[in-house]
Parts: sequence; structure tokens; C-alpha cells
Amino acid sequence: MNKQHIVIVGGGFGGVNAAQSLKNAPVQVTLIDRRNHHLFQPLLYQVATGHLSPADIASPLRRLFKRQPNVRVLLGEVTGFDVTRQKVLLSDGAVPYDTLIVAAGAGHHYFGNDHWQKWAPPLKTVEDALEIRRRVLSAFEMAERAADPATMRAWLTFVIIGGGPTGVEMAGALAEVAHKALRHEFRAINPADARIILVQSPAAILPTYDPALAQKGAAALEKMGVSVRTQARVTAVSPRSVTLQSGAAVEVVPTHTVVWAAGVKASPLGEVLARATDAMLDRSGRVLVQPDLSVPGHDNIFVVGDLAHTLNEVGQPLPGVAQVAIQQGKYVAQLLQHRLDGRRVRPFRYQSRGDMAQIGRQTAVVQIGSVRLVGVLAWHLWWIVHLMYLAGFQNRLIVFLQWTWSYFTHSRPALLITRQNESEPEVAGFPLETVG
Amino acid sequence: MNKQHIVIVGGGFGGVNAAQSLKNAPVQVTLIDRRNHHLFQPLLYQVATGHLSPADIASPLRRLFKRQPNVRVLLGEVTGFDVTRQKVLLSDGAVPYDTLIVAAGAGHHYFGNDHWQKWAPPLKTVEDALEIRRRVLSAFEMAERAADPATMRAWLTFVIIGGGPTGVEMAGALAEVAHKALRHEFRAINPADARIILVQSPAAILPTYDPALAQKGAAALEKMGVSVRTQARVTAVSPRSVTLQSGAAVEVVPTHTVVWAAGVKASPLGEVLARATDAMLDRSGRVLVQPDLSVPGHDNIFVVGDLAHTLNEVGQPLPGVAQVAIQQGKYVAQLLQHRLDGRRVRPFRYQSRGDMAQIGRQTAVVQIGSVRLVGVLAWHLWWIVHLMYLAGFQNRLIVFLQWTWSYFTHSRPALLITRQNESEPEVAGFPLETVG
Repeated sequence: MNKQHIVIVGGGFGGVNAAQSLKNAPVQVTLIDRRNHHLFQPLLYQVATGHLSPADIASPLRRLFKRQPNVRVLLGEVTGFDVTRQKVLLSDGAVPYDTLIVAAGAGHHYFGNDHWQKWAPPLKTVEDALEIRRRVLSAFEMAERAADPATMRAWLTFVIIGGGPTGVEMAGALAEVAHKALRHEFRAINPADARIILVQSPAAILPTYDPALAQKGAAALEKMGVSVRTQARVTAVSPRSVTLQSGAAVEVVPTHTVVWAAGVKASPLGEVLARATDAMLDRSGRVLVQPDLSVPGHDNIFVVGDLAHTLNEVGQPLPGVAQVAIQQGKYVAQLLQHRLDGRRVRPFRYQSRGDMAQIGRQTAVVQIGSVRLVGVLAWHLWWIVHLMYLAGFQNRLIVFLQWTWSYFTHSRPALLITRQNESEPEVAGFPLETVG
Repeated sequence: MNKQHIVIVGGGFGGVNAAQSLKNAPVQVTLIDRRNHHLFQPLLYQVATGHLSPADIASPLRRLFKRQPNVRVLLGEVTGFDVTRQKVLLSDGAVPYDTLIVAAGAGHHYFGNDHWQKWAPPLKTVEDALEIRRRVLSAFEMAERAADPATMRAWLTFVIIGGGPTGVEMAGALAEVAHKALRHEFRAINPADARIILVQSPAAILPTYDPALAQKGAAALEKMGVSVRTQARVTAVSPRSVTLQSGAAVEVVPTHTVVWAAGVKASPLGEVLARATDAMLDRSGRVLVQPDLSVPGHDNIFVVGDLAHTLNEVGQPLPGVAQVAIQQGKYVAQLLQHRLDGRRVRPFRYQSRGDMAQIGRQTAVVQIGSVRLVGVLAWHLWWIVHLMYLAGFQNRLIVFLQWTWSYFTHSRPALLITRQNESEPEVAGFPLETVG
């Protein structure tokens, strides 16, 4: 009798944890991803600010499952689901399944303004991080060559849109790059003159945090030189500026470097799956699932992670954070094992292990249960937790060294400008004269 | 009275060493490069084979000169030289000089077949290394999905063109990736079945080495699974194959992954400089300079490194290696200091510190003076020397760790597939159906 074949779509936190948790189950697993590596996204902003290299936070999927013979890794792009014949359709083939776990994650939401993406890139993949790094460093280079103060100022203005943990961490790291890491490296400009503006539409940054803690976080950012603008909406993004609206006041901020850290939209595979299974989607495109994370009417199809719309005990949707994906991936693996054993299965229950966000060198905000921490201790705790969850021993060693290094110095080892595209201009500025 | 202004074009070994050696001279230095970092090219092949990350071997130029106030770094592209008005012309400006040092280096020579470059990329920049890494890893992924043995075989065949140190090191590292690092990671293929072919036009690989040592190197490569083809010329390169000619025999090798490590051509700035100064060029485009490295008739214009055609005591041109560039950069700096002091200046004399090439994990060939070494000792010596010359303490620490790590394991930490271009297909294979 053939072993049950479980196909997992997505090699992020949800998919990898599901596959790893099936290690001892009498099943065959195929993990499909269109990239060859698992990315530790919580540390991605550190690649964007030159503190880590991509390889420090990414693990080739094959290496993760090298010693797990019941897992096969396939590099491929999923284009559809044939639910009748039980096959996952790829751009160049198909993979049959007995059970399907869709963990395709989420991307960024530009709220209908997708054309903003070119000038306000998101921070989701290694390429995103490297592009942001390139733009940030190039901005300082362009400022150094600026012919007049207004041009210099525009190049030394950085806008981060979105005041959740990603935006906050990005802003803090950027402030540190400008005020510390690049100090003394320029002659015509003082990098510490850089203005970093963090734009948040709600009334406070870190809205999922205790308000008092979030306030302390905002104060820490301001102290580092970040200008925090809450209750400000972005209404336009161009290669030269960002337009903010606060109540009736409209402000045009001249800038050439914008990072998008606001709004999450589920992977397009959510819609593809919904059409194939008659499932429903929420406003962000996430698939509404049963308490056991299965798709209604399809007890052999599950959705976990950012792609799933699940509720906590008080009926609120769970956030799209790594912890949720990790726990859901493990849950589904356990559910499948229980089924094989004929044991009853309980609904998924999320156990929050707290939230933490790094504000800059040696400051972080942490809330775990009723514990609230801000400052150096929180900063160390932040590193410890992130290290624990980082896959791969080599990665942990390198990142541990970076943690130690950054405790003693302001130096950032990976402040390189590398080009994505050979046809880009040699000097990494923007071809302003050709863009409207 | 204004200080003498020295402009250095190029932030490679020659330019950086010249600038650093002018630390205590009463001069102002401007170092221009179109990239923001100094690249330690001898270790670039290790980025191409996933052993190091770009940041491990590249140092932002600004950081190198942070504590040297008389050096200003400019990110810019040099387009010409106005020798009459003594200005270096940039794509977007001009920089006046009193003394000019051109250290623009070299690129790759495709012997009139520039269209081969697309399918046989060179190994010169960080982007080159990352592209090669992407192709190599993608080839294994494509082999894993291959529908028939011939397709699988073509994907598992890798051809390296050029049997000098670069080609040899690349071949050895690739053999190690195939036979060790990727072992157990695939299910349909055995990566150790990969064929690696090193193609060399002359009669032996490592032609600048003692023939007996080169022979030992070739034997070590064969033992690692590399097929060494000497006296074989490449006559065609396509996305599907490479055509080799050996005497009258012609062989078409089906392959999708080719690396070009043969033939060096000077930077186009050599020709630009020659036209501006009436200097002469050799066949590779290098500028013929005086014994003091100055351009004939222009005692305030110097050329150092790969761009310069200089002779040793027996009248042979010096090779385009890092050591020569380092010594020449230091020499010119010293010459300029001597001139300021009114001291006599002696001609440049190259002191060879030997040659070394790594063949794979724990084997290298080294020749220093009359000393010949092959094996593990040579391997350690190789790492020590490269570490000493690597700029930047952080880089040395990380690379030192990689050395230690690779002594104990076969693991390669940076085996990531990252895309250069967002419009490339999600699965990193080649669009064979659209290419002739």
C-alpha cells in the first residue's frame, strides 16, 4: 500500500514547519516553492540596511531536508489546483496529492496603487532587501555629489510608509546607518543630516502593542532621529516625492527613497484555491478556513500561515506573523498524524508568545503576556528569540556574531551597492529626466 | 598654496593601495570608482560557488578611507581625460587633477565572440558571481525535474573555459559543490553524477606555474571528478552546448552551464587614455608605460595594475595579478612622495611573492621562489595569504570562520538562488524554446 502523499505549497514558516513535523509520520511529502530557499523574514530589514547578508538569513530548502528522506523538495511555480483529480498544477507539470497544505504566504498591498511599487518597494524577498539597500546607499552617494542644498536635502530624506513592526524596525535601522555607520565616510555631506520619516495612517505606531509600550517605542525612534508621523495617509508617490495627508493638511515631501511597509495582501494563490474549492476570501485575500484549518468541504486541503484567515478565542483574525504560521504548520502535521492513528483532533488554538520589535542598536520593545520591556534588555531578548527561530546552525553562528559585533561597534558589514540589472546606469541614481 | 590634488581612477588593488600609501603625504586624493566597493577578486569564485557571500569579500570604499581625511571617495563613471586642462571627465561632471593615476583594471576577452558572453559569463564582479551561482544551482534543480536521461545529463554537465588559476579554482570548487555540498539534497538525481569539464587551449593548465606542479594540480582535479581537457579550443557556445576542437577532432558537449575564465582584455579606459595622451597599447589593450609607470610624455599621469603593460627584468610583460597591482599602487604613491621631497626615483621593480591556486577542499598548489607545495599544507597557506591581503577586519573574521568551517565540513553557507531581474522566469531555467 502506498504511503499517503502530502503536498505542501510554500517553503516559508508554515510549510517548513509542517514538513519538519511530519518527520516520523509514515507519509511522503513534496514541498514545492518557486524559490530554492527558506527566508527568515523577520531579519530581512537587516539585509536592507547592510547589517546582514542574504545568506545569513536564508537556508536552501534542500539543505533543511537533507536528512529527512520522506521529504522531496521541488522548485516550481504553482499555477492552479485540480481538486477533482487531486493534483497541484505547475507551470511545467503537475503533482498528484492525497493531502494538500497551502502555505503560500502573503505579499504587499498598495491599496489600488500598484504603480507606486516601483518607487516605494516592499520588503518581502531577498531581492527587495538588496534593492532597498542599493537605493539607500545610492541616495547618500547622490547627496554627496549634489550641486545645491535642495537636491542634497531630497536625497537625504527617507520615507518609510507603515508603522507596524516592519516599518519601525526599518526606520530604526536606517537612522543608525545614517547617524552612526556612515559617520565620517563622506566629505561634502554629513550623513547624520539625513531625515527619516515614518508615516503611519492609524493614530499610533505598533498598533498591536500595548499603547504605553508603543509610545515608548515612538519616543525611542524620535530620539534616534526618526520623525514619526501618525494619522498621516500617503496619497501620492513619485520618483521625486511623497504626498502626505493629515486631516485637511497636505504636505509634499521631496524624497527619492521610499520603502513600503504598509498593507499586506494574500498570495494570488489564495484566489486560485478559492475558485477551485468554492472557499471564501476575506478583504485581504486570505482563505476562510475551518477551526481545524481545512478548507470547508475539503477535509484533505488545508491552509496555514499568512494565507489563512483564522480567528482567536474572541473572534478576531490572527495576525500575519511568523509565530502563527509556525504553530499552524505544526498543528496540521500533528492533525494528519492523529488521523492516521485514529485519534480525535482538536481545533487549532494559537498561543501567543508575545511581540517584539527592535528600535535600533540596543533598544527594543517586548511584550510577552503581561511583561513589558523596553531598552537594552529587550534588545538582547529580541536577538535571543530571533536566533532560536533561525533555521540552520551556520546561520545562527553568523547572526550570533553580528549580534555580538553590533553590541560593540556601529559597523555594518554588508553596505554594498550591487546592481540587479546590468542595464541600469553605472551610477546608481535614478534617471529622473525620463520619468514624469 | 594648495595641496597637490591626485586623482585615482579605480578602486581595485592598484587604486586602493596607491591611496592608502599616500596617507601621510601632504596631498589631497580623490578616488573615483563606478562601484561603491573594493572587491577582493581572488575569492570571487567562492561567491560563485556559495561558500562566501559578496559582503565577505567586498569593502565599501568609503569605509576603507573613513579614517584617512586626505582621501575623498567619489562614485562616478569616467568617460574621458582632458589632458590639456588636466581634468578627468565623468558622465555627469569633471574632476581637475594635478596628478592622475589610472588603475581601471581589466575585463574579459571573448576573442571577437562577444555574443558568447550571454551563455558563458565571466567572473569579474559580484553580479557575475551571483549569476554564475544562480545558474549552477538552477542546473541541479532542472536536472532533478528532467524528463529523460539526455536532458538530465545536459543539465548536469558544467564547462569551464580557461585553465589559469581562476578556471582551476572554479572547477575544483564546483566539483566540491556537486560531490559533497549537495550530497543527499536531491531525490531524483545524484549530484555527484555531475560532469565538470575544464577546457584549456594551451598544452597544460596553470601555464605560469612550474610544469611539474601544474601536473600535480591537474591530477588533483581529475581525482575530484573534473575532466581536464588541454589543447582544446572552444569554437562555439550556445545555450545548449559548447563545441570543442582538439586538433582535427570536433566535439559538441551538451551543457547549459558555462563559465568563462579565459582571456583578459584591458578596460576600455585604456584606449580612451591612449587617445588622449598618444600612448601606445599592447594587444590586450594595456597601456605601454615607462619604467616609472608614467605615460610617455606625461610625467604626471601614471597607469598601474591590470591596465598597465610593464616588463620584468628579462623583458617579459608582468601578469595581471593582484600582487602586481598592489606593488605598483604603492610604488607610485612612494614616487610622488619622493618627488615632493626632492629625492631621486628608481624604476619600478616587481618582487614576486609566488603563486598559489586552491584546487578544492584541502588541496592547493603553491610556488614561492623555489619552494613547491601541493596538498593540505598548501591549502592552509593559501587561506592565510588570502586572509592577510583581504581588506577590513570584519571581512577577515568572517572569511577566517569560513576557512575553519570548511576544514571541518563540506557545507557551503551561501547556496542561494537569487534573481538579478524580476522579469526572469520564476523557475530559474533558461527559456530554451525561444532561443535558437
